[in-house]
Amino acid sequence: MARLNWGMIGGGKGSQIGPAHLMGARADGNFVLAAGALDVDADRGRAYANWQEMLDGETGREDRVNLVTVATPNSTHFEITKAFLEAGFNVLCEKPMTMTVEEGEEIVKVARASGKICAVNYCYSAYPMVREMRQMVAKGEIGKVRLVVANFSHGHHGDATDADNPRVRWRYDPKMAGVSGQFADCGIHALHMASFVTGDEVATLSADFASTIASRELEDDALVNFRMKGGTVGRLWTSSVAIGRQHGFDIQVFGETGGMRWASEQPNQVYYTPVGGRTQIMEKGEGGLSDEAARLSRVAIAHPEGFPLAVANIYVDLAAAMRGEPYGALPTAEDGLRSMTAVHQAVASARANGAWVDAEPALLK
Amino acid sequence: MARLNWGMIGGGKGSQIGPAHLMGARADGNFVLAAGALDVDADRGRAYANWQEMLDGETGREDRVNLVTVATPNSTHFEITKAFLEAGFNVLCEKPMTMTVEEGEEIVKVARASGKICAVNYCYSAYPMVREMRQMVAKGEIGKVRLVVANFSHGHHGDATDADNPRVRWRYDPKMAGVSGQFADCGIHALHMASFVTGDEVATLSADFASTIASRELEDDALVNFRMKGGTVGRLWTSSVAIGRQHGFDIQVFGETGGMRWASEQPNQVYYTPVGGRTQIMEKGEGGLSDEAARLSRVAIAHPEGFPLAVANIYVDLAAAMRGEPYGALPTAEDGLRSMTAVHQAVASARANGAWVDAEPALLK
Amino acid sequence: MARLNWGMIGGGKGSQIGPAHLMGARADGNFVLAAGALDVDADRGRAYANWQEMLDGETGREDRVNLVTVATPNSTHFEITKAFLEAGFNVLCEKPMTMTVEEGEEIVKVARASGKICAVNYCYSAYPMVREMRQMVAKGEIGKVRLVVANFSHGHHGDATDADNPRVRWRYDPKMAGVSGQFADCGIHALHMASFVTGDEVATLSADFASTIASRELEDDALVNFRMKGGTVGRLWTSSVAIGRQHGFDIQVFGETGGMRWASEQPNQVYYTPVGGRTQIMEKGEGGLSDEAARLSRVAIAHPEGFPLAVANIYVDLAAAMRGEPYGALPTAEDGLRSMTAVHQAVASARANGAWVDAEPALLK
Amino acid sequence: MARLNWGMIGGGKGSQIGPAHLMGARADGNFVLAAGALDVDADRGRAYANWQEMLDGETGREDRVNLVTVATPNSTHFEITKAFLEAGFNVLCEKPMTMTVEEGEEIVKVARASGKICAVNYCYSAYPMVREMRQMVAKGEIGKVRLVVANFSHGHHGDATDADNPRVRWRYDPKMAGVSGQFADCGIHALHMASFVTGDEVATLSADFASTIASRELEDDALVNFRMKGGTVGRLWTSSVAIGRQHGFDIQVFGETGGMRWASEQPNQVYYTPVGGRTQIMEKGEGGLSDEAARLSRVAIAHPEGFPLAVANIYVDLAAAMRGEPYGALPTAEDGLRSMTAVHQAVASARANGAWVDAEPALLK
Repeated sequence: MARLNWGMIGGGKGSQIGPAHLMGARADGNFVLAAGALDVDADRGRAYANWQEMLDGETGREDRVNLVTVATPNSTHFEITKAFLEAGFNVLCEKPMTMTVEEGEEIVKVARASGKICAVNYCYSAYPMVREMRQMVAKGEIGKVRLVVANFSHGHHGDATDADNPRVRWRYDPKMAGVSGQFADCGIHALHMASFVTGDEVATLSADFASTIASRELEDDALVNFRMKGGTVGRLWTSSVAIGRQHGFDIQVFGETGGMRWASEQPNQVYYTPVGGRTQIMEKGEGGLSDEAARLSRVAIAHPEGFPLAVANIYVDLAAAMRGEPYGALPTAEDGLRSMTAVHQAVASARANGAWVDAEPALLK
Repeated sequence: MARLNWGMIGGGKGSQIGPAHLMGARADGNFVLAAGALDVDADRGRAYANWQEMLDGETGREDRVNLVTVATPNSTHFEITKAFLEAGFNVLCEKPMTMTVEEGEEIVKVARASGKICAVNYCYSAYPMVREMRQMVAKGEIGKVRLVVANFSHGHHGDATDADNPRVRWRYDPKMAGVSGQFADCGIHALHMASFVTGDEVATLSADFASTIASRELEDDALVNFRMKGGTVGRLWTSSVAIGRQHGFDIQVFGETGGMRWASEQPNQVYYTPVGGRTQIMEKGEGGLSDEAARLSRVAIAHPEGFPLAVANIYVDLAAAMRGEPYGALPTAEDGLRSMTAVHQAVASARANGAWVDAEPALLK
Repeated sequence: MARLNWGMIGGGKGSQIGPAHLMGARADGNFVLAAGALDVDADRGRAYANWQEMLDGETGREDRVNLVTVATPNSTHFEITKAFLEAGFNVLCEKPMTMTVEEGEEIVKVARASGKICAVNYCYSAYPMVREMRQMVAKGEIGKVRLVVANFSHGHHGDATDADNPRVRWRYDPKMAGVSGQFADCGIHALHMASFVTGDEVATLSADFASTIASRELEDDALVNFRMKGGTVGRLWTSSVAIGRQHGFDIQVFGETGGMRWASEQPNQVYYTPVGGRTQIMEKGEGGLSDEAARLSRVAIAHPEGFPLAVANIYVDLAAAMRGEPYGALPTAEDGLRSMTAVHQAVASARANGAWVDAEPALLK
Repeated sequence: MARLNWGMIGGGKGSQIGPAHLMGARADGNFVLAAGALDVDADRGRAYANWQEMLDGETGREDRVNLVTVATPNSTHFEITKAFLEAGFNVLCEKPMTMTVEEGEEIVKVARASGKICAVNYCYSAYPMVREMRQMVAKGEIGKVRLVVANFSHGHHGDATDADNPRVRWRYDPKMAGVSGQFADCGIHALHMASFVTGDEVATLSADFASTIASRELEDDALVNFRMKGGTVGRLWTSSVAIGRQHGFDIQVFGETGGMRWASEQPNQVYYTPVGGRTQIMEKGEGGLSDEAARLSRVAIAHPEGFPLAVANIYVDLAAAMRGEPYGALPTAEDGLRSMTAVHQAVASARANGAWVDAEPALLK
């Protein structure tokens, strides 16, 4: 099958997520890096000085890139994503898609008008065993979901003496990070995951934010209670001062007839317990998993597949979608808007001492 | 050293906690079962038909019991504890100490007036490694505590088809269980632990309660955010519908210079991480632990000691206190009052959509 | 039920195992410490200066002890056990029962002639979940057992600079420890466990011993391959220089239709995998376990029970046996003889470069 | 940097390892698939019907492939590898490099004569944390290594009713698999790892093989004791009937001043214990690791990297070696010869009831 031309904006030297995109796009041979506005080797494609030049340069080319990945600083996602969508490119945007709800609404509208793909890189949702959980819920294997508990806590910003470190500091500075710190940075992955796995959306929420390091204007710890449209109760804890937690992103889903647990540090297993029965360890690659989980797993059972291949799975689904083939799931501009709405509403709730607020985007009601 | 005469009220056949008290009191040879109002072998002490007869029978005897354990149904704790304290007995009361704040205040007053010990069986606080955490916090080994996260979640009431099971049903019926279900039953252990380990008290809280099984009048899932007097942020999740969690009672404490984690299902380890360093696995029985932890450990490192010996440690401290010897820590009537205040205030908060409420007992301010 | 009079020889101050016997005998109220030749409180029974005086003092008394626990230095087990058996006492002997095969044969003969109980404290076999494994094998739930892998490795003797520590040194000195160091000390527990769980006996073995710390005359690391009478293949690794392993005693049993794994540091779970199926986590206290496992568990599921209560379970079975009631299993003098034969034959094999040798006691063929 | 032309022979549809090579070679953008004798898309390079045609077609081309991966059935590795080396290609050969010791010697000679790279895909050695262990040993951080324990046990061939499954059966048939079953298939990875991490070679060994499923001519379970040239004691257990073990490949290394443990199912951590100290959890990506570990890690701490990226690390080192840049480590033809010698000598030992045999290749002495 012919490879698809791909371009990346940002994600170059010093980027945390750039290497994962490079590997992710390459891993399965679907994409070839044909253009980029970033500091990678010129010989690997058409190199542009910035995204505007790339937009100009690619527009109208016969062999133009079919997909653009936006991995630039957060505040630029909106304008770049919008510009490329309007010019008829498919876009994979890093999270957060936008900084405001209004921008999020605009991206949704532009994406809808364009007919192009606008995906947001909620890559944890592309782990095979996360897809398996989603399938199990959809098939009713744990019954109606009563409760979802999602955490994303780490301790990498726990050193107050490190407060001037620019890699850390900007995340708690509203001038650079926007209205929210840790919840927007990590918690939102957990909230997306809660929706993704349950197949439901957050309806209302109540937030408690704390800046446990006093110099921080934005929260470094947050607890968000929520209710989903179908009635599911939600609990979400996120922290960046949980010293000793490395990448404590996990989700637990409890239904009428069973419970499940998944953790990002051991992403190849799900612990599943039928009500009244024993906990079973499900393994990526085991027989009998859903097509969806099987399709996104590359090597045999108990050969671990990690984070870069979760990102790669986003590209697998993108390639399929671009080729008009069936695919599993892609986080969309609507998901990006939902996240931005949740962030802003959580901030509003936290400022109102935890008052319950509506978390559904008006545009999507 | 002479053994102390001990009596137990309740805790007989069918009791969940009675066997742990029997083993706990016996394990170290400090106590001999001299009297009881329960259905155990008559030959093991003076058997009474009920607590009133036991109170009458023991009062005035030369060899009367020095300590009475109250392990009867919750609603009777108050009157029995009060009566025995007033008659000059030391009392170990099962949790909850009372059903109302007013009763709790009365017990505190009676206990203070009596000069006798009134302990409440928050037995998890007596695990050696929990004591070690408390000592580490007290010595400043993790700096000022920023955040404490305590969970106590299980799935043993997750089967709605089991709703008529009387062992389960009463816990969600306000006529039998009082104002709170899961939070009063399990969550309160986690809240006590948060105070115990940090050496601080809960000042304010905000609660979100849910009855995920609709037929339940009381909550089977709760999230309580709190702030401690010293400023520590607290998060507490408790559930009885978390299918697959067996006894998910754990605590994480995060300070300026380190973090710690302990879980009741593997109670002999603490995972400790100094800021910027690696996680270290601390083991019960290892060299260099505090006297407090060493004193309450009986067998060598990596020979696990479990729940009954945590209960036994309460009796070790009781025996020491009764003999006028130094001891580590005993949960007191004041702790019982704090718990009852927290339960009632959490209920008030939950009813007021999570409004923040004062959680300190007026009597103890 | 009337309590049984119990005596202990050795196990006093400084003993590692003494406290576990005290707790074990007391935990369930079956025994009362009526006599002892050890440095414990005189008021807790008749105190004798040594075992001979205890033998003289107890013999002929109306209220003499019904059971004597022998927890003295290893080299004295034989004569004390023999003497008490001959005088008509039931005996629980610490491991090793004897130092030589000949002594072992004599104890078996004396025990048989006496009609009394001679038990050896292979206490790990009394954990509820170990009993459950044994029941599962016996019921054929994993089919014919193909393979058993038992390890007992720790690192507590891994510090060569500690070589003069008398608590460590004697174990590698043939004048004090006999013919074997680590295999006789720890490995033999693993070998007993292999027999206990499979319900089969070791037929032949081949051993590789190493003194990884050169100053040691006896081995501090050993690997023993074996074959059981029913054809099961066995692998056993034991080490005292495995720095980082705390109490690495575990067993894996693999049959035609399933596999199981148990580890002494988390003794309340068994990981069971039916062939072609998922691994299931079995929990002490869960519904549906064998009567044998249920009988030896005291507190509810996921409330851990540890090492001292495994020892207590030996006393539970002893009390039942002494009262003529049904009981589960007791390690016997025959087991003690089998162990001693295995130790001596492993030494012979190791000296012969791993030659395969017969491991069955001649007396028991 | 210009990409290197790469070709693969075998590894196509149905191959277990082929996908990992494809991902591995692509992941970092060093290689482009320029030719192949396999059933992949023709548009991705020059497609040949078989390896001979590929050899003819590539030889003499200006743009010929710089590296050939041999992922064909085991019995063909020798002739293909030899032919390509002789024609001046660099080769990455799947394991086993050859079927006999003589063939192994010939490959070593041919590789040496060619001046080309002949690497063998012992890919587990390329995990960052395995490299870190090797560095720690080399730097003396655990002192002289006393003991290494390496296991590679799974249960995927544990179903005897599956005995006719051709994917399983051939492994135990000497006509197809050669002289050894499970030891040659999996155990040899563990033996290579023992050498790799300790930086030492196996000198002598003693093997115990078993066919626990009777219909198998070759062993499905093996225990190999060994001694390394520097005196280190080695233990190796490998099994394919360990039902419940998924991919139980782990290694423990114990030295004078510390111990380490790594497991392939959680490859991003090493558990390290300094003598007399606490176990520390080392994380891939943490600060302070060796350059070697840091270089082979792509995403941030606690973002797991799995098996395909370990294979990719082999390609990273291959690319560096081919470009004349410094690189970490590459398993060589000499390693392949050592493995083949160990396999044949283990078979000889097993047939001689575990007699100790020389395991060093004569050619390399």
